[in-house]
Amino acid sequence: MKVSALGEFGLVERIGKLIDKSRDTSESWQKLILGVGDDTAAWQGDDSIQLAKVDALVEGIHFRHGMMSWEDLGWKALAINLSDIAAMGGIPKYALVSLAVPPDIEVDDVLALYKGMLKLAQRFGLAIIGGDTDSAPRISVTVTVLGSMGKSKDLLTRNTAKPGDLIAVTGYLGSAATGYEIIHGKTKNGKNHTAAKKAFLRPEPRLTEGQLLLKYGIKTAIDVSDGLLSDLRHICKASRVSARLEAVKIPIAPEVAAAFGKKALLTALSGGEDYELLFTGKAEAIEKAARKAACSITVIGEIIAGKDGVISVVDEAGKPLKLSEKGWEHFVSK
Amino acid sequence: MKVSALGEFGLVERIGKLIDKSRDTSESWQKLILGVGDDTAAWQGDDSIQLAKVDALVEGIHFRHGMMSWEDLGWKALAINLSDIAAMGGIPKYALVSLAVPPDIEVDDVLALYKGMLKLAQRFGLAIIGGDTDSAPRISVTVTVLGSMGKSKDLLTRNTAKPGDLIAVTGYLGSAATGYEIIHGKTKNGKNHTAAKKAFLRPEPRLTEGQLLLKYGIKTAIDVSDGLLSDLRHICKASRVSARLEAVKIPIAPEVAAAFGKKALLTALSGGEDYELLFTGKAEAIEKAARKAACSITVIGEIIAGKDGVISVVDEAGKPLKLSEKGWEHFVSK
Repeated sequence: MKVSALGEFGLVERIGKLIDKSRDTSESWQKLILGVGDDTAAWQGDDSIQLAKVDALVEGIHFRHGMMSWEDLGWKALAINLSDIAAMGGIPKYALVSLAVPPDIEVDDVLALYKGMLKLAQRFGLAIIGGDTDSAPRISVTVTVLGSMGKSKDLLTRNTAKPGDLIAVTGYLGSAATGYEIIHGKTKNGKNHTAAKKAFLRPEPRLTEGQLLLKYGIKTAIDVSDGLLSDLRHICKASRVSARLEAVKIPIAPEVAAAFGKKALLTALSGGEDYELLFTGKAEAIEKAARKAACSITVIGEIIAGKDGVISVVDEAGKPLKLSEKGWEHFVSK
Repeated sequence: MKVSALGEFGLVERIGKLIDKSRDTSESWQKLILGVGDDTAAWQGDDSIQLAKVDALVEGIHFRHGMMSWEDLGWKALAINLSDIAAMGGIPKYALVSLAVPPDIEVDDVLALYKGMLKLAQRFGLAIIGGDTDSAPRISVTVTVLGSMGKSKDLLTRNTAKPGDLIAVTGYLGSAATGYEIIHGKTKNGKNHTAAKKAFLRPEPRLTEGQLLLKYGIKTAIDVSDGLLSDLRHICKASRVSARLEAVKIPIAPEVAAAFGKKALLTALSGGEDYELLFTGKAEAIEKAARKAACSITVIGEIIAGKDGVISVVDEAGKPLKLSEKGWEHFVSK
């Protein structure tokens, strides 16, 4: 079978099973808490739980050359990894960068990429400590971020959602997808183009919010990279539960509504790349976190008992809406 | 200026300077021991010194599709990173893999790549804990390896060589370059083709030897990836010294001599990708390590005072040989 037929998630699952079979009694395996399959890997370090995550931006797949500045590219390549640390409630510490660029790229452009990355790194006290650089026909930026849980003995995971948990999300959804459409000339509708473009080009990793959620007793979180439905399904499959979302409660930013009109809900549900935190927990814990958070936190639905990974979206009368549940998946056309 | 004009090493230097300017008072920077520019990054963890390194194999640059099996590719992508951990005297713990493959690749081939990696990982008690997979026009395998110095408070670095130190190397040189030539049909000469091909396809990271060197008081090491002259120059520049190599002492494997005849010395000096350890230290320490090591350890020259990074290769009469000092450098044609 070709990888295009199996899809990215299927492939990662097969790889995960193969790696799992290789588990042995070595110290590294003994101390491992989470391997392939959550937002980051996690293991017991000397004193604190350690986190690590790798993710890449590839030209022609995740971005088009010329459609975002080099600084934006650097920022975003780091931001998507920091977002995974945020989804664990962790603290980022170090980053390693593997960069592939065609030989005819300007040195100043490569340095601009690093400048974008450093701006974001400095904000969170992160040090960039490795810089492998190779020649390749297309640009790709692969970032590994290392983090720690500090003094926390717990972390946010995907497999701890329970029936009765409320589902909530930070910020607004659909903005990055709207920014993508505007930048690529697919829509000229609406207003607030700057905010939408910024959401796509320079996402803000919710690190402070992730740590806050953990502090107030939330156990389950993921970051919204593939799209709300797709990422909620990851939680539901890992936790072996179903979920019901209330369409009217989904926080849709004004620029999304302005650009997409009736299709705004679909964009918010499946747009992807917003890098907000999607989490579940008791109403009380969510309320406490919402009171302290610098961004909005909105309850959008409920975890229910049922078949693993099944999600329904209901209208104000509780009647299910028909929607494609597919988020954006690499290797598979939309 | 284009990156092709500056070259890989020049570009990494410029990136390193830019990152260095961003240093601040955050804990991550305070605890950093080595950043961009040594074999791995190193920082003080809770109890032990932590190590991290990222390196990539890119199709068309480091390998040609069809010229090595998928298992070989997996093995080698991990081996080149483990070799950097070995050059610090460290213990590998975890690896994260970012894989880019064209969508028409077979799933079984991707799994074979992981099988090759897992074979090597299991030998050293390493756990693979992350597996990002993306679609891309060409294959690339980016591996991040995390390690630790265990109870050692010291590590092997590049910048500690001193005039009077002897220069030594593990194993034999030129074998991987010979394997490359045989595999790519550039030579049919010689014998021991299997050994030469194995040196290129499945290099053996010298982890046990690196730890042994550290134990017996060696301070300075690097792994031979770019070629003996090029990697020795890295040590000499970082340590601000010169070096003299004795041509007759360079350990050249029989398959290299058989394939290259009079050019065997040049191959051993600049071939690259042997992933042996090149190190400097006092005669007594080298002798002790040589007695305990499972592979050969050969003294090949001496560190001398002089201009940073200047290397001479002398014949039996002490007369300098004329040679191109260039090892293999990405972005720059040979």
